[in-house]
Amino acid sequence: MTRLTNARLADGRRVDIGISEGRIASIDSACAASGAGAPTIDLEGALLVPGFVDGHVHLDKTLLGLPFQPHRPGDSIAERIARERELRRELSSPVGERAKRLIDQIVPLGTTALRSHVDIDPEVGLSGLHALLRLRETTRAVDIQLVAFPQSGIMISPDVADLLDAAIGEGADLVGGLDPAGIDNDVEGHLGVIFRIAERHGVGLDIHLHDPGPLGCWELRQIAARTLAAGLVGRVAVSHAFALGAVDDGEFGRTAEALARAEVAIMTNGPGPVPMPPVRRLVAAGVRVFAGSDNIRDAWSPLGDGDMLARAMLIAYRQDFRADADLELAFDLTTRASAGALGLENDGIRVGAIADLVAMPAGSIAEAVAARPRRSLVMKRGRVVARDGVLLERGVDA
Amino acid sequence: MTRLTNARLADGRRVDIGISEGRIASIDSACAASGAGAPTIDLEGALLVPGFVDGHVHLDKTLLGLPFQPHRPGDSIAERIARERELRRELSSPVGERAKRLIDQIVPLGTTALRSHVDIDPEVGLSGLHALLRLRETTRAVDIQLVAFPQSGIMISPDVADLLDAAIGEGADLVGGLDPAGIDNDVEGHLGVIFRIAERHGVGLDIHLHDPGPLGCWELRQIAARTLAAGLVGRVAVSHAFALGAVDDGEFGRTAEALARAEVAIMTNGPGPVPMPPVRRLVAAGVRVFAGSDNIRDAWSPLGDGDMLARAMLIAYRQDFRADADLELAFDLTTRASAGALGLENDGIRVGAIADLVAMPAGSIAEAVAARPRRSLVMKRGRVVARDGVLLERGVDA
Repeated sequence: MTRLTNARLADGRRVDIGISEGRIASIDSACAASGAGAPTIDLEGALLVPGFVDGHVHLDKTLLGLPFQPHRPGDSIAERIARERELRRELSSPVGERAKRLIDQIVPLGTTALRSHVDIDPEVGLSGLHALLRLRETTRAVDIQLVAFPQSGIMISPDVADLLDAAIGEGADLVGGLDPAGIDNDVEGHLGVIFRIAERHGVGLDIHLHDPGPLGCWELRQIAARTLAAGLVGRVAVSHAFALGAVDDGEFGRTAEALARAEVAIMTNGPGPVPMPPVRRLVAAGVRVFAGSDNIRDAWSPLGDGDMLARAMLIAYRQDFRADADLELAFDLTTRASAGALGLENDGIRVGAIADLVAMPAGSIAEAVAARPRRSLVMKRGRVVARDGVLLERGVDA
Repeated sequence: MTRLTNARLADGRRVDIGISEGRIASIDSACAASGAGAPTIDLEGALLVPGFVDGHVHLDKTLLGLPFQPHRPGDSIAERIARERELRRELSSPVGERAKRLIDQIVPLGTTALRSHVDIDPEVGLSGLHALLRLRETTRAVDIQLVAFPQSGIMISPDVADLLDAAIGEGADLVGGLDPAGIDNDVEGHLGVIFRIAERHGVGLDIHLHDPGPLGCWELRQIAARTLAAGLVGRVAVSHAFALGAVDDGEFGRTAEALARAEVAIMTNGPGPVPMPPVRRLVAAGVRVFAGSDNIRDAWSPLGDGDMLARAMLIAYRQDFRADADLELAFDLTTRASAGALGLENDGIRVGAIADLVAMPAGSIAEAVAARPRRSLVMKRGRVVARDGVLLERGVDA
């Protein structure tokens, strides 16, 4: 039993929280209850929120820990994939080491769970997956979900279909996909392969989709239809889905309706230079939207830092969110909604919930998004893993 | 004489810098020179850059220091102006106090000069200006330039023309303007008034322009033409100019050419939800682009924090800048280019330059924009005003 005293909840209540066996055991008005003898942490009125869930990272791609690597430009996604493969061959630091650096950076920022895509291609095969599976075994500070991600396409590099299937067999949690039209130029073929693998293993999917406008929306409706047909309702996500931000009302409505019916969730990182899915309109249409960092100092972008509170701000900034309710929605994308999309339990501060918790000096969720204060405490399943921006515990070193 | 030793310059050189009478007196290879007896600060290889110049803030609008104020939404700029005036009447903290809080926040972030607009309208008259003029007198850590800003329009509230004229007489540095079409519905009248005041007093202009598309571009060309006619070449800026991000190539080309010829500078804060001026294309066309924070926790937006390095990141993010040269351009907008637009001398690290300097742990400008590390040292005219994020000196308290 541990007690967190003087916590401020999002609804304004001041409470003491009892934690036992990694879960929230009690929530009492501050100072009302006694947990005589239990170790106590006084939060001094800090805002207590659920741990952040980063719905989209690439643990294997990060260059953290290496000297700063200048970006190597490419004009198309295909060119950028080629540039990344060049860079990858030159790196002195292995996947596991770089991924560990990333985790050490984001745990003190309050991330307690994440979904990472991991490249599967003919060149690296399953080696990235193996490295991340090993890292996952020794990591306690953050839950890790792994998506087998065909970064170099499937139909244009045929071995990949078998590799994806093997990846799921070896422990990847979901099947990934990538621009069935834009990269593979074969929507039927690409979706056929990944849905078959998902069905065979009974796992979900998370598909990267950058294809624009009406093409991207048509692919979204294909994905929704296959989700229904495969009985995977609620277990499929599409990451990016820029197309939803650049079509007319009719096209948007048709697509949002199809996504809502198949419970296909949409991940956004609030992209800078391209259209982004309109968050309020999607939520109003019944579509689950959740948030992720995407690139954190990697071959695709040097800019990300993995701070999900800053990501909520960025999404708010791009969506013209200013009112408290809007800032709360942006925050929700990084916590409750992303936990839901990942099928995790840590979805709020209630008795029985997993004690993945973050405290920070702020009077409200809206103020937290606006000010982005340092996280004073990060707790993973009832263990304090970081304080005041300093990592205390990642897990057991391999 | 003060010495900064072991500084890393943007070009990679390791140097020792001698500072005397507020200026850079010497730049020598690290450890080559002796400044025997002079007070020495060892920068330990930190990157040394010119102080940030925030080209657009609203010192009088910030709500910093007050409890977090929920945003009051408005559907149009006119409605938001009305909401702001309501809020302003209820505030318990005066302009000078809130502005001081903002300065105390941004000096440790490395801002050593700023341009602030200050509301002039029939309700507040010149009271905001007077408060900021008093604050300027007692502030040493940051240079303050003031723009007399007709936030409530000119032609629709006729007293304002005389108030703007009086504001310049009492110490404002530039004449402001606001959406001659969108707010005043009188481009000829609005521009006529502000250019006449500028000419009469021999001062420059900085005009807010949110008007969209071809209308905004037409107004930009009107401003450029009047700039030439008034002999104010190089002394006029337009803030925001969203229109430049949402017109066809012909319209863009005509407008950029007119701006370049009249040396009208464009200020951008890398806005989130609206089109933004395309930075590379404008620079290629010979137009000076510079950066500012705009709203920092005020009635217009709760999100800004005044960190110009984060602003450079945001501009890079919106403009799809990833390569080192692009990140350097974004950084340049916040330092050299904004100093130039404001007519300031502190435009680089060279012998004779004003010693407005910032040090931070980074290997290069690109890495600094990507990582946004804490500023380890901030120097204003040779005096250390902040270290490791902590303000040491704002100036003399009034």
